[in-house]
Amino acid sequence: MEQHSKFAVDAMGGDRGSLVQVEGAILAFKEFGIRSVLVGRAEELRAHLEYLGGSEYPLEIVDALQVISMEESPSKAVRRKPDSSLCVSYRMLEQGLVSGVLSSGNSGAMMAAGKLSIGLIPGIERPAIASLLPGGGGSPNVLLDSGANIDCNAKNLVQFAVMGSIYSSVLFSLDAPRVALLSNGEESTKGTDILRAASHELKKISAVNFIGYVEGGQISSGAVDVVVCDGFVGNIVLKTLEGNVRVIFDELIRHGSEGIFSRLGLFIAQRALRKVFLEHFDSSSYGGAPLLGLRKLAVVLHGAADARAVKSALRVAKDFSEKQMTEQIASALLRIEDVLIADEEDI
Amino acid sequence: MEQHSKFAVDAMGGDRGSLVQVEGAILAFKEFGIRSVLVGRAEELRAHLEYLGGSEYPLEIVDALQVISMEESPSKAVRRKPDSSLCVSYRMLEQGLVSGVLSSGNSGAMMAAGKLSIGLIPGIERPAIASLLPGGGGSPNVLLDSGANIDCNAKNLVQFAVMGSIYSSVLFSLDAPRVALLSNGEESTKGTDILRAASHELKKISAVNFIGYVEGGQISSGAVDVVVCDGFVGNIVLKTLEGNVRVIFDELIRHGSEGIFSRLGLFIAQRALRKVFLEHFDSSSYGGAPLLGLRKLAVVLHGAADARAVKSALRVAKDFSEKQMTEQIASALLRIEDVLIADEEDI
Repeated sequence: MEQHSKFAVDAMGGDRGSLVQVEGAILAFKEFGIRSVLVGRAEELRAHLEYLGGSEYPLEIVDALQVISMEESPSKAVRRKPDSSLCVSYRMLEQGLVSGVLSSGNSGAMMAAGKLSIGLIPGIERPAIASLLPGGGGSPNVLLDSGANIDCNAKNLVQFAVMGSIYSSVLFSLDAPRVALLSNGEESTKGTDILRAASHELKKISAVNFIGYVEGGQISSGAVDVVVCDGFVGNIVLKTLEGNVRVIFDELIRHGSEGIFSRLGLFIAQRALRKVFLEHFDSSSYGGAPLLGLRKLAVVLHGAADARAVKSALRVAKDFSEKQMTEQIASALLRIEDVLIADEEDI
Repeated sequence: MEQHSKFAVDAMGGDRGSLVQVEGAILAFKEFGIRSVLVGRAEELRAHLEYLGGSEYPLEIVDALQVISMEESPSKAVRRKPDSSLCVSYRMLEQGLVSGVLSSGNSGAMMAAGKLSIGLIPGIERPAIASLLPGGGGSPNVLLDSGANIDCNAKNLVQFAVMGSIYSSVLFSLDAPRVALLSNGEESTKGTDILRAASHELKKISAVNFIGYVEGGQISSGAVDVVVCDGFVGNIVLKTLEGNVRVIFDELIRHGSEGIFSRLGLFIAQRALRKVFLEHFDSSSYGGAPLLGLRKLAVVLHGAADARAVKSALRVAKDFSEKQMTEQIASALLRIEDVLIADEEDI
C-alpha cells in the first residue's frame, strides 16, 4: 500500500461513543490491513486502544479537543469549532496527510466542513450521499442523495444522476448502469415540477443511461442500478427500508414462535434467515456512504454505526481511493459538461 | 343492514381488468354480506358475473360507456368523460343511491371527481389518502397522505394530521393516537420549512396528540399511530415498503434453497412466513384506503388490486360507513377550528 493510503476517523462522532470507532479501526487493520488515524480526545482514544489490545497496531491518534454534536446547526458548528475532531480530520485531508475522512457524526456538519475545507469538484453545486442498497440479485443499487440536501433543484438532481452513474459503473464494473429518478409513478405526467425538469435534462445526456422514473417498489428489485432523489426523500426511503427489515424480522420471530413446528423450522432455516436479513439488508454490512462531489474522499456513516459498520466503511474508503473514484467522476463530468455546453449553443 | 349500505365499484379501473372487480364484489357479498353496484360496460360485467357464477347474488350493474385510463390528466379526464365509470359512480353517491365509491383506477381522477361532485368537508382544503400499514404489534399505522397531493403546504399537513388522528381513534378505538410528521430526523432543526411550520401549528392543537417528527424507521415500529407527510413522499414510502417485502421474501427463498437444511426449515416454517409476509405486509389484505376530507366516502385501491384486495376494500368501506367516519371527522374539525380561531384572536 502506498504511503498516503490511510484514513482519518472522526472518533468522537456517532451515537455509540468513541470505543466502537477505535474497535472498527482495529478490525479494519486486522482484516484488510487498512491504516487509520483516530482523531479526537487523545487520552480517551489511547485508553480505548489499550483496552481493546490494539496498541501494537500502526494506528495513529491525533488530538482534537472539540466535538460537534448531532443537534448543532451544521454551518455554525463548523465555523465555531475549528478544533473539533471533524474539522481536524478534514484539515489532515486538505494537507494530504490522509486519503479520506470518515465520520458517524452530524452529517450536515460533515457536508458543510467538506465544502469549506476540501471544496467541490469544479462544476458541482452540491455533494450527495451515495448509499448502497440490495440490488435484487444483481449488483447493489446506489441511492443518492440519501440525506445531505433537503431541498434540491433540477440541476442538482441531474448532477447526482451523473455522479451516481459513474460511481455505480466503476464500483460494480457496469457498462451503462440504469439511472432513474425516484417518483410517485412511472408515467411522465407524474412527479414534481423539479423532477420533470431533471428528466428533461437527463434525456439529453447520452453518457447517462437514463431510464425515466421508478417507483419506490422498484428499488432493490433488479430493475434499476442508480436511484436519484433529493436528500429528504432519500433519507426517509433509506430509514424506512432499514427499519422495516427489523420489523419483518421481529414479526417473523414472533409468529414463528407461536407453534412448535414453525419454531423448529425457523431454527433450522436460521442460517438462511441471517444471511438475508443481516448480510443483505443490515446497514452495518454496507457501512459508509461517500459524499460524491467533493474534491477528496469523505465517507458518512450512520449515527448508530457499530464497530462492524466502521470497519465496512473503512473498506468502502479503501475501494473508493484505490479506484480513484474522485478523479474518475471529475474527468467524466468534464466530458459531460462539454455535451451540456454544446447543447446550449445549439439553442 | 340499512337500505343505503351498498357501494359503487368502478369496475373499469385498475390494471387487472374488470373481472377481478366483479370477483371481489362477489367475495365481499359471500363473506360479509356487502352489496355492491358494479359500474362499467354492462354487457362485459354481466358476462363476468355469469362466468363467475355470481348472477344469483344481489349485485347490481349500472352501465357506463366511458373509461378513464391511468395515463390521463385527472382534471381534464373528469371534465371530458362525464359518462365514465368513475363519474357515474360518484353521481350515484351524490344522489344518495350508494354509501360510497371504490376505484382501482386513476387516483388523481378519483380525487378530482370527488372534489367536483361530492365536495370537501367544510374547512378542508384537500383530501388525503389514508393507508394502513403494519403497526409493529399494536394497531396498524395510518399513513397519510399516501398519494393524493404531490405538493402540500403546512396547513394541508395540519389538516391531514387532524383527520388521521380521528380516523385512527375511531377505527382502532384509541384514546389519543400518537400523531407525527415524517421527517429526515427527530430533532426539531430537521425537516423542510413546510414541516417546521406544520409542527409549530400542531403543537397548539390540544385535540391532537402530536409527538413531533418521526424518521422512516419508526413507521411500523410501534412508536407512532398516525404518520403524516405529503402525497409524493407517502406514495414513495408505501411502494418502497410493499416492494421490499417482496424482495425480502424472494431473497429468503433464494438463500433458503441453497442448502437442504435451510430448505427443510423454510418448508416447516412456511406457515409463519406466510402469516408475516402476506397477512401483515401484503397490500391486498389491507385493501382500500379512504380519501379523508371528502363529504362522502370514496375508497382508493391500488392499481394492481386483485379480487381479494377489492373484497378487503369493500370491507373497509362498510366499516367506515357504519362508524360514520365522515360525520365524526366533520364534527371533530368543527371543535378544533374553534380552537384555531381562538388562538388567532389571542395574537
